[in-house]
Amino acid sequence: MNIREALVEMKAQSPVLGATPVEKRNKALSCIIEELKADSAEIFKANKKDLEEAHKANLADSIIQRLKFNEKKLEGLVAGLADLIQLPDPLFKTTLARQLDEGLNMYRKTCPIGVIGIIFEARPDALVQISSLCIKSGNCAVLKGGSETFNTNRVLFQSIQKALVKAGISEHVLFQAEERTEISELLKYDEYVDLIIPRGSNAFVRYIMDNTKIPVLGHADGKCHIYVDTSADFEKALKIIVDSKTQYVSVCNAVEALLVNRTIAKEFLPLLAKVLADNHVTVKGNKEVSDYINCDVVEDAELVKEYLDYIVSVRIVEDEAEAIQYINKNGSHHTDCIIAEDKEAVAQFMRLVDSAGVYNNCSTRFADGYRYGFGAEVGVSTVKIHARGPVGLEGMVTYKYEIYGDGHIVDDYASGKKEFHFKELD
Amino acid sequence: MNIREALVEMKAQSPVLGATPVEKRNKALSCIIEELKADSAEIFKANKKDLEEAHKANLADSIIQRLKFNEKKLEGLVAGLADLIQLPDPLFKTTLARQLDEGLNMYRKTCPIGVIGIIFEARPDALVQISSLCIKSGNCAVLKGGSETFNTNRVLFQSIQKALVKAGISEHVLFQAEERTEISELLKYDEYVDLIIPRGSNAFVRYIMDNTKIPVLGHADGKCHIYVDTSADFEKALKIIVDSKTQYVSVCNAVEALLVNRTIAKEFLPLLAKVLADNHVTVKGNKEVSDYINCDVVEDAELVKEYLDYIVSVRIVEDEAEAIQYINKNGSHHTDCIIAEDKEAVAQFMRLVDSAGVYNNCSTRFADGYRYGFGAEVGVSTVKIHARGPVGLEGMVTYKYEIYGDGHIVDDYASGKKEFHFKELD
Repeated sequence: MNIREALVEMKAQSPVLGATPVEKRNKALSCIIEELKADSAEIFKANKKDLEEAHKANLADSIIQRLKFNEKKLEGLVAGLADLIQLPDPLFKTTLARQLDEGLNMYRKTCPIGVIGIIFEARPDALVQISSLCIKSGNCAVLKGGSETFNTNRVLFQSIQKALVKAGISEHVLFQAEERTEISELLKYDEYVDLIIPRGSNAFVRYIMDNTKIPVLGHADGKCHIYVDTSADFEKALKIIVDSKTQYVSVCNAVEALLVNRTIAKEFLPLLAKVLADNHVTVKGNKEVSDYINCDVVEDAELVKEYLDYIVSVRIVEDEAEAIQYINKNGSHHTDCIIAEDKEAVAQFMRLVDSAGVYNNCSTRFADGYRYGFGAEVGVSTVKIHARGPVGLEGMVTYKYEIYGDGHIVDDYASGKKEFHFKELD
Repeated sequence: MNIREALVEMKAQSPVLGATPVEKRNKALSCIIEELKADSAEIFKANKKDLEEAHKANLADSIIQRLKFNEKKLEGLVAGLADLIQLPDPLFKTTLARQLDEGLNMYRKTCPIGVIGIIFEARPDALVQISSLCIKSGNCAVLKGGSETFNTNRVLFQSIQKALVKAGISEHVLFQAEERTEISELLKYDEYVDLIIPRGSNAFVRYIMDNTKIPVLGHADGKCHIYVDTSADFEKALKIIVDSKTQYVSVCNAVEALLVNRTIAKEFLPLLAKVLADNHVTVKGNKEVSDYINCDVVEDAELVKEYLDYIVSVRIVEDEAEAIQYINKNGSHHTDCIIAEDKEAVAQFMRLVDSAGVYNNCSTRFADGYRYGFGAEVGVSTVKIHARGPVGLEGMVTYKYEIYGDGHIVDDYASGKKEFHFKELD
């Protein structure tokens, strides 16, 4: 089956999957657990092949660690699936129930988005997590994982399809694309695909956004800021900055730029410089910053980069208002934080910073579906429509309006013969 | 000010408007009422000029009726504004409040989308309605109305800007584009504009969708279906079909295709043909339909058009399942209706038809923000992400996650030193 044939079939299956009761969707998830366990030897064998090829290709050790799929990763995956089964059904929820007039009732009910195209990094657990999020939310999906896990993904996908069939769900609700060329083909089919979720590098996500008419949910940049206010508790500030920068440097929610209020610069910057040096973080700063601390002196334009490394930029700002303006202008509307004890300063920041996550006195690294209590996430969104921030089950549904009448026609209302009687229903 | 300068200024004003308390936004709306009344003579004068030019250009009478702005239209507009003031504030609503761990609390709060580009038909009331929906929802907007109301719109917009300034809101939160060339310019500025809402012809909306990277909310086609089930009450069916087709033929929620169950075809079709003929509606049907009634015989491919006229297509289907499949495949996911008394048949249709509005026993013409009790609408959306169906204030907001900590860092959780304690907050 090629990708177009798969999409035609998927579009037909999509309403059926969307009408499937949650018991059946959960059953599919528990079947996935069973199949993964039953097929584990075969999965590990396929993974070994991927790892051998990765070594041969001299991939970095950090990448190889991500490719590895062993007993421990399987356990984590099974635990995640068990959690997902426990999560409430995101479908068929009535979010508005209103009488429009006597005998004319409207209900807004959640339903799946339909067909989603998801392109994700080479990490075997990602394939299983994303597939199961789609099943739970009643969405069909075309899945394209990183090529470095080609062998593992193929076996994992077979196990998932066996599980679907066991649970009485069509195997055609999911399709695995294995060739990179299939991505550009997928992007063309706006008549079949309702949403694209790309995960991966900045450049890759931009490429997707620039090359499809299908709505795209995701984030390109992750330029997170921390502003240190005059009312900041320095001890908290240093701890949070180190965690935000170094807990995992290559991710979108790591901090990239620090803004320090001029009033506290003289006192705070030397403390900051020491703790960053202790944690192997290089500081980039402009001329003004270099008056206070040793740093890699660069032009202002260099301070707004996403480093994804043990590098952070530092800039001095006149006041909170300048910090807010700077973040709204130069940030990526992902996650930004204020370190402050002053309640009014915090409230101001929370109101005026235009980001998916606005934090006070905690690490930017909390921007993650699991840490928000969503169970899992399919991605993090910095677009402002539909779903913003970590996207869990709730972000994977839309809704429809159902209206039940008894022969009601519009002309009666347009002519003034009848009037609407809006009333919320219980 | 050109459009780029206006957008730069708007992007800076946008967080400020978004943080404005509802009292101030409502004050702006009541100032608009005052200014419109004060400027009415000037507005009517400008409208006269537009009407003269419309007559000179030999525009159709139906269009000229829409261009007209008189005392009665002003009254309707003022009443609508008064209603809008009464509607609850869509901003700053907490839609999720969750403790992530001791002292680490998360709140999801609604906030404006930011900067919206709205392109709409030549109807003077549209300019005022759309501007006021934007103000109420805290959104900045670039507005481009139909050129046939150029003079009226210019005076109306001046009144609105005076009102904004009186209420203490920057006049730069709204910008009126007057040249058609400004549309293509607007579509380029994806770094400033968060959402485009085009209203107008099918071809125009498609053009917008095909020529911008900015997310687009709206609908191109409006191919609404009515399926007449074996369990239908014929009297209701005929009344609803006439209303859905003729109450206003040139709109997106008018019915374009009727699907009739084969079991009742012989009995129902002659009744249908009569009532449609009485209402000057031409029937297009395939060979099979022409065995039962007189009709304009066409190929099947001709039956799936959006006529926007006194024309409707009729097709016979084997059963409800075929009707549902046909609608999902050939419809435009706008609004589709089943006429049936059988509860199971209705439930099946509501579950399986993948449209923004799924109706039972009422006219498709109810698909409208005012009739849904939304007060007003900025458009109707058939895209499945963000907002679907008529888009009122609720569809004009997004949300952000606010997290308040006390020095919380991720490493404590990643290392296992601490555990999350998720708890919903009151």
